[in-house]
Amino acid sequence: MRLLVLKFGGTSVGNLERISNAAKRVIQKLKEGYKPVVVSSAMAGETDRLIKLAKEIDPMPPERELDMLVSTGEQQAIALFAITLQKLGYPAVSLCGWQVPVVTDKVHTKAKVKKIGVQRLKNLIEEGYIPIVAGFQGVTEDWEITTLGRGGSDLSAVALAYALGADCEIYTDVEGVFTADPRIVPTAKKIPLISYEEMLEMASLGAKVMQARSIEFAMKYNVRIHVRSSFNDNEGTWIVPEEEVMEKMAVRAITLDRNESRITVVRVPDRPGIAYQIFKALGDAHIVVDMIVQNVSHQGYTDMSFTVNKTDAPKAEEIVRKVAKEINAQEVVRDDKIAKVSIVGIGMKSSYGTAAKMFEVLYKNGINIMAISTSEIKISCLIEDKYGELAVRELHSAFIEEGQEVEVSNAS
Amino acid sequence: MRLLVLKFGGTSVGNLERISNAAKRVIQKLKEGYKPVVVSSAMAGETDRLIKLAKEIDPMPPERELDMLVSTGEQQAIALFAITLQKLGYPAVSLCGWQVPVVTDKVHTKAKVKKIGVQRLKNLIEEGYIPIVAGFQGVTEDWEITTLGRGGSDLSAVALAYALGADCEIYTDVEGVFTADPRIVPTAKKIPLISYEEMLEMASLGAKVMQARSIEFAMKYNVRIHVRSSFNDNEGTWIVPEEEVMEKMAVRAITLDRNESRITVVRVPDRPGIAYQIFKALGDAHIVVDMIVQNVSHQGYTDMSFTVNKTDAPKAEEIVRKVAKEINAQEVVRDDKIAKVSIVGIGMKSSYGTAAKMFEVLYKNGINIMAISTSEIKISCLIEDKYGELAVRELHSAFIEEGQEVEVSNAS
Repeated sequence: MRLLVLKFGGTSVGNLERISNAAKRVIQKLKEGYKPVVVSSAMAGETDRLIKLAKEIDPMPPERELDMLVSTGEQQAIALFAITLQKLGYPAVSLCGWQVPVVTDKVHTKAKVKKIGVQRLKNLIEEGYIPIVAGFQGVTEDWEITTLGRGGSDLSAVALAYALGADCEIYTDVEGVFTADPRIVPTAKKIPLISYEEMLEMASLGAKVMQARSIEFAMKYNVRIHVRSSFNDNEGTWIVPEEEVMEKMAVRAITLDRNESRITVVRVPDRPGIAYQIFKALGDAHIVVDMIVQNVSHQGYTDMSFTVNKTDAPKAEEIVRKVAKEINAQEVVRDDKIAKVSIVGIGMKSSYGTAAKMFEVLYKNGINIMAISTSEIKISCLIEDKYGELAVRELHSAFIEEGQEVEVSNAS
Repeated sequence: MRLLVLKFGGTSVGNLERISNAAKRVIQKLKEGYKPVVVSSAMAGETDRLIKLAKEIDPMPPERELDMLVSTGEQQAIALFAITLQKLGYPAVSLCGWQVPVVTDKVHTKAKVKKIGVQRLKNLIEEGYIPIVAGFQGVTEDWEITTLGRGGSDLSAVALAYALGADCEIYTDVEGVFTADPRIVPTAKKIPLISYEEMLEMASLGAKVMQARSIEFAMKYNVRIHVRSSFNDNEGTWIVPEEEVMEKMAVRAITLDRNESRITVVRVPDRPGIAYQIFKALGDAHIVVDMIVQNVSHQGYTDMSFTVNKTDAPKAEEIVRKVAKEINAQEVVRDDKIAKVSIVGIGMKSSYGTAAKMFEVLYKNGINIMAISTSEIKISCLIEDKYGELAVRELHSAFIEEGQEVEVSNAS
């Protein structure tokens, strides 16, 4: 009998009726011959409610206590899930992260999973129980509660699937991964099969289906993921190793990320070590920097821009202001009204002219490019926020709707 | 420096403003030279909200999962409390029951404390932190979350105070323990000092200030408790060993308990083993019987009455109806409209005529006594519910307001 991890997101357990529906899906899988292990997020809205409470007390609440607070959301959901399954006649046991245990490092609010103890889970499954594990939660070796960061429940599910040698189904409120956000591009299509690499780029670029860290983990350990809707039985999107993806599209999808802010340090003396000073300070504060642009130097001075997550932006600005003083920069400017539009596709590796075509589409629509970043399988352009939706629609039309070079390889 | 456990009830942490007030009290104690350890209940209403959710799924939810669910209430409160203290500039660390650990037996929803590990708490205090401990929660030796039953947070506080060798302050929404419920008797007075024994009787007799189990624990281990209001600085009531109570009042307080029902088995054949059969069946169902009255036998038949908690009454009635059939009793009658009025006082041991005076007061007010039960330090009379408040007022007037014999002993 095959083990299967089923992960339900916040909207899939958003109220008692939905928990009941989720429980019935688990029972269905049981009847199909799987041994299910459930991972649940907090009921939709609960995590945000708790964070809001904490921030009413302190806009920057201490992270250890924030973890204590928000981890209760998942604990409530798993208990209600277990009560529901038992009421339906199926023995179930809820487990907090520390009870599994899901052991993490000590970085509160964004801990990394170090190891997962599976003996208790295996014993429970052996005894005929359905384990219901709290997503998002971990525990340090000193028995402190940690959380894995936004989208951490997906990571819990993927890591558990790996530890148990199971497949992983992610139940969510969308039908799968699309060629673009269907709310922006009504003609966007569901992607039946996508490689880890592409999905990883998409996650990093603002596609909200799954967090990058979960995909990274799945890629590293070859965990096959099926992302699907908890509201119907349609097949969703399978996220799998590259060699299993037959059609290698130059452009698989278009993404839009409105979650970044740009910070510009104006008129920095252009001497060695300046960039190091700025980005060392940000790194020390655990702030992830995305795009970096340094202008050509003029008379010994340069401007330096970078983007960070919007939630980190006030803290980043504060830090950079301090550094700017030390290095005699003229000023620090923050711009929250930016968007990052990207094209992603594993076929890009072996096709030419994709970048040029992207720039052409933006140019023809009067959209100025503030910064560019590329990888083997994606190209991102930073643009003014107000052009975000237009850019996505035009790029989707040019790359996805109007056919493209497809390289069909034999899966090895 | 003296350790002090401060316990805040649900209303005292009912919203962020109240948590802030509670935190300021803790800081005040710190400034007075104490080393504070905080125990907090869940925010008022949260536990009930969670139980209601569980019962919507299953009217008899599995108790292990209920503990998982409701224990989140305290966890949220302690995290918010710790964030508040830190915001005010005082290092604080919240701890769940399992993190302390508060080790209990395996009886979910009403676990008994077996031992408390204090090393982590002592280390934290040593390092200058204020520990904020979740009341109500425990953990079994198998790492299962338990809860200590209603009023369990008081027990957490008293047990912690004992384990740490600390005094214990219970902050609540009343000013202390009164000679009668001030809502019934406006002239009721706050009792400055009361013995464990008296408080224990009062708790069992319907005074809602503290649960009997916490007092029992305090009495067993000599933990001094100060019950006081979280809304002002007035001295409350100290609950202390008998020898510290100088004034040994014959009657310290009057209590009224409307939480019982009477069940009467009518015309029972009066032969050996009948009482055993009835009360064995109730005991097997974990129903606690309070007062028992058996009438004098007439022509080989007798009536047997007893009282149980109102919530147990329907179940008790059902059980007794079955037994009544077996033993050929004529019928079973349940009466929910009863009240138990009691007088409590440690001086009763060494004073005469107290019982007679109580019966006289009731008689003069036309109140019929249905049953009587006594201990060394209390006398309870079962009366019709409608006379409950009248009885309390008249007894308060006769015993408390009109002076009484006071035996002043030297504390040894």
